[in-house]
Amino acid sequence: MRLHTASEKFKTDRPCLIVDEFQARENIRKMKNKAERNNALFRPHFKTHQSVAVGEWFRDENVSAITVSSVDMACYFAENGWNDITVAAPLNLLQIEKINSIDASVHLNIVIDCILSASVLVNTLQVPTGVFLKIDTGNRRCGLQPAMKDEIRAICDILRLNPNSKFSGFLVHSGHTYKTTDTDQIKAIYKADKTYLEQLKHDFQVYSDEELMISIGDTPGCSVVDELAWADEIRPGNFVFFDLFQHHLGVCAVSEIACVMACPVIGMYPPRNEIVIYGGAIHFSKDQLMSEGEMVFGLLAEPDDSGNLKLNEHVKLVKVWQEHGLIKYHMGGMSSVKPGDIVYVFPVHSCLTLDAVRDVKNQFGETLSVMPKPF
Amino acid sequence: MRLHTASEKFKTDRPCLIVDEFQARENIRKMKNKAERNNALFRPHFKTHQSVAVGEWFRDENVSAITVSSVDMACYFAENGWNDITVAAPLNLLQIEKINSIDASVHLNIVIDCILSASVLVNTLQVPTGVFLKIDTGNRRCGLQPAMKDEIRAICDILRLNPNSKFSGFLVHSGHTYKTTDTDQIKAIYKADKTYLEQLKHDFQVYSDEELMISIGDTPGCSVVDELAWADEIRPGNFVFFDLFQHHLGVCAVSEIACVMACPVIGMYPPRNEIVIYGGAIHFSKDQLMSEGEMVFGLLAEPDDSGNLKLNEHVKLVKVWQEHGLIKYHMGGMSSVKPGDIVYVFPVHSCLTLDAVRDVKNQFGETLSVMPKPF
Repeated sequence: MRLHTASEKFKTDRPCLIVDEFQARENIRKMKNKAERNNALFRPHFKTHQSVAVGEWFRDENVSAITVSSVDMACYFAENGWNDITVAAPLNLLQIEKINSIDASVHLNIVIDCILSASVLVNTLQVPTGVFLKIDTGNRRCGLQPAMKDEIRAICDILRLNPNSKFSGFLVHSGHTYKTTDTDQIKAIYKADKTYLEQLKHDFQVYSDEELMISIGDTPGCSVVDELAWADEIRPGNFVFFDLFQHHLGVCAVSEIACVMACPVIGMYPPRNEIVIYGGAIHFSKDQLMSEGEMVFGLLAEPDDSGNLKLNEHVKLVKVWQEHGLIKYHMGGMSSVKPGDIVYVFPVHSCLTLDAVRDVKNQFGETLSVMPKPF
Repeated sequence: MRLHTASEKFKTDRPCLIVDEFQARENIRKMKNKAERNNALFRPHFKTHQSVAVGEWFRDENVSAITVSSVDMACYFAENGWNDITVAAPLNLLQIEKINSIDASVHLNIVIDCILSASVLVNTLQVPTGVFLKIDTGNRRCGLQPAMKDEIRAICDILRLNPNSKFSGFLVHSGHTYKTTDTDQIKAIYKADKTYLEQLKHDFQVYSDEELMISIGDTPGCSVVDELAWADEIRPGNFVFFDLFQHHLGVCAVSEIACVMACPVIGMYPPRNEIVIYGGAIHFSKDQLMSEGEMVFGLLAEPDDSGNLKLNEHVKLVKVWQEHGLIKYHMGGMSSVKPGDIVYVFPVHSCLTLDAVRDVKNQFGETLSVMPKPF
């Protein structure tokens, strides 16, 4: 990513997340093109940016269907003009009233993975809603195992009891792609997913008059795998900004990372080769990764003369407390840094960092509004 | 802590932090009494609760001096009637204008630990402000080493150049108490602190017409050490709620923990003895501790017939993703839990959890307003 100018430092007096709008739009176009090449609907996950402003960048690429992670987030985007929304987390039975009260112009899809939720749903759902069955192909978080045919059949039978609950297909989040050590492993996960999901789609097509959908999503897989024509829609989210973790997985180049933290320096400790920044766990979150044998919460981003940010892997955010962070330099490397400066740090996990800091600006210093917390 | 009633479940449809107001007030009174016994000013850190509403509970115990972690937080509490505020993080030179613009009725104290910051400060400070020198007695985050007498002298000389920058004493945050494995180690840290700080106070008293202050703070030390008469003020924060980490350190009893997360169950996976809750990293934060050989993000809190929450150490929040959490039960233990239920989970670190979830209620369901983000 590139800052607006190299000569004039970005102006902020507290930690904020800078988004390179050009790079983010480029990332959106690239993923949109991949979806089109594969004849798959592009339904990006908006939990990464939580932002109506960033949503407009997607709209500029003719995106009209989106994914969110909670009913409250669906309400936020519905109130801001989005009307085709999938809540990709398993149905929260305590929020069916909220679902019933969403504006009738909004088409909502929800996700379930158990008979009990299906039963409660058909007794309470009052608005036409797409229902996806969540399938667990190895992530071991939520979902029915592909082999649980009896349960899937039972759920499909239950959904028929209420004309509002329309069985729409199978949804998977192969989050185990995040645990891989090379991109071939990511490809192998998608190969297995294809087999599982095509079989399910075939076996349960009888339960729907319309073609069932296979919905997949996760940035590592959707970025690395070229052949996605077996999916009817893709739901990646993180790719809009990427981050160190995706780079670490081999999923993106440093130049594709479209966000960086800007933090004031508040302390310098030359004998320790360390500085302390205003920017801690409540700004970065506490997601970590291993870099050169050390757990880090971020790595230094250094602007060159044109404002392009280069990764300096040897300068590490090695500790974060509530509001402070400790950056360790290599010997002699911190000679020019002092309190009152701004340093730039690539975050480990952009989704959690944005959620924590909630102060998001583009490279021109314009605030990108994000959904108000709590949710 | 105790929920309002055992029979009627706390009503929420999304993750929220419940605070037991009675227990929190009890925790406040206990620490206030300890400060009084030691003839030390009680200046509690408000970064734990970030709440004007909880601040009133302190005011009810005649607390009038507070600590915060940022200039923005100082502004928030100043706007809400607090007028004696210490910003305990090293001075952010980019916010001196903000400091100059705080209402004249507010007495602000700030903290510095280097000559450069002192120099910038005396050239720009326009309002009478107390200035503490931060001392590092072993935490290795911020602060001057006690032996750096020349630097301390140089800073004191610089502060004299501007009548607004009033050298007020020495401030320490002995965060290394959090790395201890028994309470004797905490006591040993405070014993060393006493020696360092009394010597500094003696050596540099000549730089002030008023008695210099020794300001200490951190919940483990202030809770465990009885003899604090050598300190002129104490600034603990976490003690108002406590959490699993403090319990783990031996600093508080489970019954003294005054906050718990309430989370809807959204998935159940009996073959794995696991449930999935709506409640993830953006609600709990990602602070962890080791419990029975496993890293956990929280542990189950089970209400008895009277609503008292008991810790069940065998039921663990073992994973958190952005919005989901995975709770692992022991064999057979999850028989009665199902989607649509609310489960209660003690958080590892109440400060970060409150900052993340931002939905805070007392046990009667009344919202306790917290400072708006970003800051």
